[in-house]
Amino acid sequence: MATDKSGEIAINMAETKASAKGTAPLLNYSKAVAAVEPPNRGAKKGLAVGDFVLRLCALGAALGATVAMGTADQLLPFFTQFLQFEAQYDDFDTFRFFVMALGIVSCYLLLSLPLSIICIIRPLATMPRLSLMMAALTIAAGSASASMVYLAHNGNDDVNWLPFCQQFGDFCQSASGAVIGSLLAAALLLIIIILSAFALKRN
Amino acid sequence: MATDKSGEIAINMAETKASAKGTAPLLNYSKAVAAVEPPNRGAKKGLAVGDFVLRLCALGAALGATVAMGTADQLLPFFTQFLQFEAQYDDFDTFRFFVMALGIVSCYLLLSLPLSIICIIRPLATMPRLSLMMAALTIAAGSASASMVYLAHNGNDDVNWLPFCQQFGDFCQSASGAVIGSLLAAALLLIIIILSAFALKRN
Repeated sequence: MATDKSGEIAINMAETKASAKGTAPLLNYSKAVAAVEPPNRGAKKGLAVGDFVLRLCALGAALGATVAMGTADQLLPFFTQFLQFEAQYDDFDTFRFFVMALGIVSCYLLLSLPLSIICIIRPLATMPRLSLMMAALTIAAGSASASMVYLAHNGNDDVNWLPFCQQFGDFCQSASGAVIGSLLAAALLLIIIILSAFALKRN
Repeated sequence: MATDKSGEIAINMAETKASAKGTAPLLNYSKAVAAVEPPNRGAKKGLAVGDFVLRLCALGAALGATVAMGTADQLLPFFTQFLQFEAQYDDFDTFRFFVMALGIVSCYLLLSLPLSIICIIRPLATMPRLSLMMAALTIAAGSASASMVYLAHNGNDDVNWLPFCQQFGDFCQSASGAVIGSLLAAALLLIIIILSAFALKRN
C-alpha cells in the first residue's frame, strides 16, 4: 500500500491549494464532492480563457472562409455573343453547401462567445456536444470542398473532367483559401472539444 | 485544516472499499470522490456495454464501406482497339483516400474492441481523443467521397464535367453504398464520443 499512501499525500496537497482559492456552486457540480475535493479553480479558469481565445480564432477562420468562398467570383475579360465566362461559388453545389455550413458554424461560434465569457467568470461545464456537431459540419464541408478544389486544379483524365484553374485562377485561389480557412476552423473546434473534455474530467 | 483531515479519512475509506472489491488503482479515478459518492457502477457498466456494441456496429459499417469501395470495379462489355472502358476506385484520388482512411478507422475500431471489453469488466475512462480523430477522419473521407459521387451522378454543366453513372452504374452503386456506410460509421463514432463524455462526467 505504499503507492496508495503517496497518492493520499498528493491529493491532500491539492486540497489545500484549491480551498485557499474558494469555489462557487456550479450547474454540473456534485456538492458532495465539493466538500471533500473542491476542483482546481485556477486550472478551470485557464481552460475557460483558452476556450474563449480558441473560439475567437475559430470564428475568425470560419467567417473568413465563408466570406472568401461567398465572394469567389471571376468574370473572364472575353465573351462571345451567347456566352459569358464567369465562375461563381454557386456553380458548384459543394461550394454552396460549404457557404451554408460555414455560415452556420460562424453563427454558432458568435453566439457561444458570450457563454464562453460567462464560463470565465463562473466556470461551469460547457456543451461539448454542440461543438462536436459543429466540428463535424466544418470537417464535412471543408473536405468535400477540398476534393472539389483538388479536382478543379488537377482534373481527372479517366473520366475526362478537365481542370479549369488555369482559366479561372483567381476563383480557384479564393476557393482554396476558403478551404484552408475551414480546415483551420475545424482543427480549432477539435481542440475546443478536447479542452472541454479536460474541463469535464476536472469537474 | 478540517477539510483536509476529512479528505484524508475519506480517501482511506475509498482505498479499503476498492481493495475489498479487487479493483486496481485507475488512471482517471478520483479516490476522494469515491468515498463520499461512489460512482454509479451499474450506469458505468451500461455505458461500457453500449460503447462496445456501438464500436462493433461502427466496425461493421467501416469495414463494409472499405470493402465496397475497394472492390468497386466495372469493366464495360465493349472495347475498341486502344481503349478498354473500366472504372476502378483508384481512378479517383478521393476514393483512394477513402479506402485508406476507412481502413485506418477499421483497424482502430478492431484494436479498440479488446480495450472496450476490459472497460466492461473494469470501468475505467476510455480515450475520447483518439475516437475524435477517427471520427474526423471518417467524416472527411465520407463527405469528400460523397461530393465526388454526387458529381459522378449529376455532373456539372458549368465546367463541362459530364456524369458517368449511366455508363458505369454498378461502379457508382458500390461507391454510393460505401459512402453511406462511412457516414453511418461516422455517426456511430460521434455517438461513442458523446457516450464517453457521459462516462467522464460520471467519474
